[in-house]
Amino acid sequence: MVADNKFQVLENMGKSPNVVREKAAVTRPRRETLNGHRSVNLWFTGLSGSGKSTLAHAVEERLHLMGCRTYVFDGDNVRHGLCSDLGFSLEDRSENMRRVAEMIGLFIDAGVISLTAFISPLEADRRRVKELIGAENILEIYCNCSLEICESRDVKGLYKKAREGKIKNYTGISSPYEPPKQPDLDLNTGEQSLNECVKIIVAELKDRGVIL
Amino acid sequence: MVADNKFQVLENMGKSPNVVREKAAVTRPRRETLNGHRSVNLWFTGLSGSGKSTLAHAVEERLHLMGCRTYVFDGDNVRHGLCSDLGFSLEDRSENMRRVAEMIGLFIDAGVISLTAFISPLEADRRRVKELIGAENILEIYCNCSLEICESRDVKGLYKKAREGKIKNYTGISSPYEPPKQPDLDLNTGEQSLNECVKIIVAELKDRGVIL
Repeated sequence: MVADNKFQVLENMGKSPNVVREKAAVTRPRRETLNGHRSVNLWFTGLSGSGKSTLAHAVEERLHLMGCRTYVFDGDNVRHGLCSDLGFSLEDRSENMRRVAEMIGLFIDAGVISLTAFISPLEADRRRVKELIGAENILEIYCNCSLEICESRDVKGLYKKAREGKIKNYTGISSPYEPPKQPDLDLNTGEQSLNECVKIIVAELKDRGVIL
Repeated sequence: MVADNKFQVLENMGKSPNVVREKAAVTRPRRETLNGHRSVNLWFTGLSGSGKSTLAHAVEERLHLMGCRTYVFDGDNVRHGLCSDLGFSLEDRSENMRRVAEMIGLFIDAGVISLTAFISPLEADRRRVKELIGAENILEIYCNCSLEICESRDVKGLYKKAREGKIKNYTGISSPYEPPKQPDLDLNTGEQSLNECVKIIVAELKDRGVIL
């Protein structure tokens, strides 16, 4: 029973008030030290076509080349996966945001720089995400691009369908977009180049000591 | 509008059939190369008290010291977070497993070695997880410890309560545990020492080329 006791001893730590510290010895700070950078979430918000996803992937590429651990969340890997059971009712959108926030929290704990590219049109939703994972862990980046330019891009042809009434509750057309009141970065993605925007974000991460 | 076009060019890639490849340029293989190890999930299954969580954290500690990117999922960070809306009905347990699987999938994609410590008593549930994220991405580790030993440990005093009928549907007492038929590793966590178990798992990861 000696061998067994070795398990017992560690299990017993669970009875102490410090259970998490003693059991989960690999913590966020240790992971950050191993990675050589801090973990954070870059929350891109803006109209469809404002460049959120493009910018998130371009920033990820840059950070990856700098040796950072990164991950981009977008509709593809969230809506079709973790949240595949959810629709677009108010309740479901709210639950979608909650899960995204919880997931970001896990990635932050895991030492990863996550980048989220969701329209996230409502201030209340964005505020709730900050409350759940801590505002200090998020950099809110407003992809500030006029509806005119977004609509002229119309990558997926969805604005056209929305104008024709074939899509209901389309953000910017038939559903509101509430611009962030105090975004950490306000980028004019309609006029600034992709490269300029990437540089601004990387500089901000350096300023904040997230990366070296 | 030149600057604007730079966004446009990248966005347009979305129209090609290779949208994911061209946009999400930072891929799992690139992350694995950066990390110096492959990503995988270590799925610990076994009775309460069989040493799943202890072993998962001990393996994580070892892997972290070897420079690996790791993350442990357990009841604390999943049941209280991502799945806090779920109870313990059959439906909710099933949805819990689905979300855990989707989350593991994201971590695998992110290049991380995740370790999950859930009782996961049902073969059907474990099979579903494998189907969702690909059996090749999971190492199923059976913490094979007799009910007698688990009950004698009774870290949380739950076996006692289950015996007294104060907890219903307690795995091993009033609810079945279906041992894995073909686990990748079958560890006698009742008799082998924690250190021995860790060594076996690390050796297996080396054999499979997950770590160097």
